[in-house]
Amino acid sequence: MRVLGVDPGLTRCGVGVVEGVAGRPLTMRGVGVVRTPADAELGHRLVAIEQGIEQWLDEHRPECVAVERVFSQHNVRTVMGTAQASAVAMLCASRRGIPVALHTPSEVKAAVTGSGRADKAQVGAMVTRLLRLAAPPKPADAADALALAICHIWRAPAKNRLQQAVQQQAALHASKGRTP
Amino acid sequence: MRVLGVDPGLTRCGVGVVEGVAGRPLTMRGVGVVRTPADAELGHRLVAIEQGIEQWLDEHRPECVAVERVFSQHNVRTVMGTAQASAVAMLCASRRGIPVALHTPSEVKAAVTGSGRADKAQVGAMVTRLLRLAAPPKPADAADALALAICHIWRAPAKNRLQQAVQQQAALHASKGRTP
Repeated sequence: MRVLGVDPGLTRCGVGVVEGVAGRPLTMRGVGVVRTPADAELGHRLVAIEQGIEQWLDEHRPECVAVERVFSQHNVRTVMGTAQASAVAMLCASRRGIPVALHTPSEVKAAVTGSGRADKAQVGAMVTRLLRLAAPPKPADAADALALAICHIWRAPAKNRLQQAVQQQAALHASKGRTP
Repeated sequence: MRVLGVDPGLTRCGVGVVEGVAGRPLTMRGVGVVRTPADAELGHRLVAIEQGIEQWLDEHRPECVAVERVFSQHNVRTVMGTAQASAVAMLCASRRGIPVALHTPSEVKAAVTGSGRADKAQVGAMVTRLLRLAAPPKPADAADALALAICHIWRAPAKNRLQQAVQQQAALHASKGRTP
């Protein structure tokens, strides 16, 4: 399973590609940051993010895109830009028929460090260890994007089992032929 | 000047095209709503909004797109979706090289009613009068989109004069050949 993780942001949009399955060592396929100039017009920044994400999708052909779920409780000044950058990433993926998964920051931290309240350094250290890198990816947005991809690969089996259980339950109820 | 106004929203994205210049009667060229189902995945909803906005741009070829500036102080539950829908509208316009202008809700209300604190009904009534319509456009999102376009046409001359004054001032300073 190849997953593109996206840590959305207008100034720095972290992107990282991880390949593997839960329970096996994971491999990093690429990591980087899509940057846009803070003094450019908002529309032009969104176009630059679109072009950057498209390049990553073209090059790595991920089977899924994992995007950080944005909460409005965050820093009020940056949250709008984060929401807008995440919209562009989701749009690019969905337009190609690639499934989009959203994970909260605490889900991601808990997945890679064991604690939903881990700090940036801890996430960076675990990403470095889990992907057997020589050094933590810089900037933090790039490391966060890899953490998102790892989180998705590890959470996907649980989500699939849950969905299967729900479907089996539904099928069971249907087969019982309940009358209205 | 032909302006597409966009009142961004995930469930209902109001769109309206107004043509004219400040100081002359304005003409409505089209009004409508791009809707997406609330139970669809977010990525698919953003793709549907993109397709809807693209159709309006294809059909009406506006010279400018005026989008409501989203504030995070608004209703926390809907503000993220509004920001994401507005990102798609801005992206579609900027990708075509069409200038994007952002206006705050109070700027729009003040432009069409004289008060930045006017209610929906008042905005709808003034849009109806200014565009000489038989009845207020429904739903309110459609009327708001027309109000945005009207606001932009009326504010544009003032903005242009301001920009020209700033440029003249800068040119004057430059011609004085100030030494460091």
